[in-house]
Amino acid sequence: MIPLPGIPELEEGDDLAAELAVAIARAGGLEPGDVVVVAQKAVSKVEGRVVELVDVEPTARAFELAGPDGDPRHVQVILDEAREVVRSRPPLLIAETRHGFVCASAGVDASNARGPDTVVLLPLDPDASARRLRDELSAATGIAAAVVVSDSFGRAWRQGTTDVALGVAGMAAILDLRGEIDAAGRVLHSTQIAVADEVAGAAELVMGKARGIPAAIVRGVDLPVGGDGAAALVMPRDRDLFR
Amino acid sequence: MIPLPGIPELEEGDDLAAELAVAIARAGGLEPGDVVVVAQKAVSKVEGRVVELVDVEPTARAFELAGPDGDPRHVQVILDEAREVVRSRPPLLIAETRHGFVCASAGVDASNARGPDTVVLLPLDPDASARRLRDELSAATGIAAAVVVSDSFGRAWRQGTTDVALGVAGMAAILDLRGEIDAAGRVLHSTQIAVADEVAGAAELVMGKARGIPAAIVRGVDLPVGGDGAAALVMPRDRDLFR
Repeated sequence: MIPLPGIPELEEGDDLAAELAVAIARAGGLEPGDVVVVAQKAVSKVEGRVVELVDVEPTARAFELAGPDGDPRHVQVILDEAREVVRSRPPLLIAETRHGFVCASAGVDASNARGPDTVVLLPLDPDASARRLRDELSAATGIAAAVVVSDSFGRAWRQGTTDVALGVAGMAAILDLRGEIDAAGRVLHSTQIAVADEVAGAAELVMGKARGIPAAIVRGVDLPVGGDGAAALVMPRDRDLFR
Repeated sequence: MIPLPGIPELEEGDDLAAELAVAIARAGGLEPGDVVVVAQKAVSKVEGRVVELVDVEPTARAFELAGPDGDPRHVQVILDEAREVVRSRPPLLIAETRHGFVCASAGVDASNARGPDTVVLLPLDPDASARRLRDELSAATGIAAAVVVSDSFGRAWRQGTTDVALGVAGMAAILDLRGEIDAAGRVLHSTQIAVADEVAGAAELVMGKARGIPAAIVRGVDLPVGGDGAAALVMPRDRDLFR
């Protein structure tokens, strides 16, 4: 895990790939098989996925879900991003995003935003963001590294967040071992490993929210091959026991 | 992430720390700040947490939950390990273990077990297992590395497993950033990072179920300090929205 510090605060329209390429060069460059992990917030900011709360008119439902301690404008942005509210306990909202991710606040987050009345949304299509960054980094560095766009998600039943993959390009998100043989000669059943999520979590270990390091390289991992896209990480509704 | 291959198939009573120490020496030894991640299955086997299904008498409930495709003896072992069945869709059972972990089959698993009619249970006290391994590795190597006992857990809403920490010694399981200031000068709210889970996932990237590598070193991570124990990763029931 190689952190990529020194990337400046980003604004809509900034060239994230160019900033990453500079940071990558400073870290000694890319190698074949590398994964470049980029925090969702950096991607969202350059894509203009930022809302000023002063522009938001909360509905009655937003006031209700915000409770006495929440900001109804912030809740309204969450509702606008959510396909469905999965659970609520004011001011906490767990929602399904338009991408199918189930997470706190539909991914809408105020920390590491520009100002106190600004919130950052998830990218509209994080897989497309990852593919674009991969193409641009490939052109800039000559190495077609995989790219993972990551975010910190809470989990059911476990305390604390881990970083997971919202967008994946250049590697399969899941290593599918179904039908393979284990070391004891037995067929492994139902063994699908969310490698892209583990890569995102590994990168987080050297990134760090409070340190302002929005990207890292993960090197030395046998990446699963196959079609890319974090969409493969979304549990289909008919197999989901927890909604 | 440094894999530790060459650890032989383990049996009850084997000296896991001694085997790890040999593999660690082969990999160049430990450095201060390292985490040694050990697969739960290796720990469970040396601790004798293995059940022969021929010895199991399934109850009527086990037959019912097994459905037409499951093995009621296997289900009975799961029920014996479970504090509560959280969801069931035969033959799938999501259960809370005696430790408070919510996972498939209460952690009872047949893959990488000794034979076709053998299942492996979680350690009785994975934090104690981690502490013991840490003490023994410290004595054997002269370096008091942190130890994480890991297992592959599925997640609500997301496909695929990621490795998480069942036992933690020598580091805090969670990095608590609540009240810290982000790079933009804003207070980070509700920011607790499950570092031990991310370390377990990072190690999994070089371990691999099908390759029979049950341990790895994770190096170069700023480990959170504070009381250890994976128990801190269990969401308290009164804050759990998903049961």
